[in-house]
Amino acid sequence: MSHLTCGTSRIVGCRFSVFPMTDRFVEVITEALESVNTDKVWIHTDDLCTCVRGRAEHVFDVTRAIFAHTAGTGVHTVFNGTFSIGCPGDSKGDVFMSEDDVRMNESLAEKANIETASHFSLYPLGTDNYMDIIYQEVERAKSKGTLTQGIHYSSRLDGTLSAVFETLEDAFTHAIQTERSHLVMTAVVSANSPSPKSI
Amino acid sequence: MSHLTCGTSRIVGCRFSVFPMTDRFVEVITEALESVNTDKVWIHTDDLCTCVRGRAEHVFDVTRAIFAHTAGTGVHTVFNGTFSIGCPGDSKGDVFMSEDDVRMNESLAEKANIETASHFSLYPLGTDNYMDIIYQEVERAKSKGTLTQGIHYSSRLDGTLSAVFETLEDAFTHAIQTERSHLVMTAVVSANSPSPKSI
Repeated sequence: MSHLTCGTSRIVGCRFSVFPMTDRFVEVITEALESVNTDKVWIHTDDLCTCVRGRAEHVFDVTRAIFAHTAGTGVHTVFNGTFSIGCPGDSKGDVFMSEDDVRMNESLAEKANIETASHFSLYPLGTDNYMDIIYQEVERAKSKGTLTQGIHYSSRLDGTLSAVFETLEDAFTHAIQTERSHLVMTAVVSANSPSPKSI
Repeated sequence: MSHLTCGTSRIVGCRFSVFPMTDRFVEVITEALESVNTDKVWIHTDDLCTCVRGRAEHVFDVTRAIFAHTAGTGVHTVFNGTFSIGCPGDSKGDVFMSEDDVRMNESLAEKANIETASHFSLYPLGTDNYMDIIYQEVERAKSKGTLTQGIHYSSRLDGTLSAVFETLEDAFTHAIQTERSHLVMTAVVSANSPSPKSI
């Protein structure tokens, strides 16, 4: 698995939830949060979701691992996350920017191969050429083989958990155009759905 | 309950899911989708989510009602939606724009009073003054009494299901600045959470 450098020294954040569709959801979520190494990110969980902030690679590493642990239970689980960089006022937690780039949850073992489906959208803010940036990242996902469908307001990815999260990280990091860009990406990733794939 | 006119004759869409955290999730989702009147919107459900498109008032009416039916089961349920207007290429389904403005699911009975918590974010695209638009809508939510907290990348609302969806609709419709605006709003709304509120 290859990872691109994040092309930025600025803080990246992700506000996300995992939704395990089971009566045991509290246990599944709690276990996932506890089983992942979050040493290199600022992390805060409230009654609605979890927010992680730090270097891009660690934000993607931690969110991917938490979803993998949840999906690894075999329960139908959906990850919903909003990744962000350049949000005005986002400075608390900058201390984590001095961490090195070694990912703490790189190996997901067999969980990396769980089949997933995803919808993602990029929102480059404060710029006229945002559609060009979006089209460019859709083309990149296509060339990686994970993009399966353009849909209303979003693009669809299908593939292993590992391939889909790599595509998401690539799209986000490449869509950062300048050292002042404010960029948001939303991603929904589903595993173990009982519904037949609609592609 | 008052509703503002939507200030636009253009098509609005929402791609959304409801996540009932129960072993019976298939039954709960299916029943919610079937119990709501969707006559005035274009609607399509796939294995990841549902997309509704039409006049603003009907898009908000239908999404609110589907979440209300799911939350009304008493199960911990989260609604996750992306509302959009002005997305380039969004024209299929314009036939629903000739519907009148009478909402089909106005009365939610006691479900209107279910306590909810929400995070929402506005993304006005293709404009330099997007932060001003966002701040203006945060102020509006504050004046309505539902805004409880500014958080990283989002704003928090607390209140009844009815009050929270009314705030979301007001924020979205007011943030549409011109007949060419491309605007996206993401909203997560939670009901019946066993976690203590973090405010």
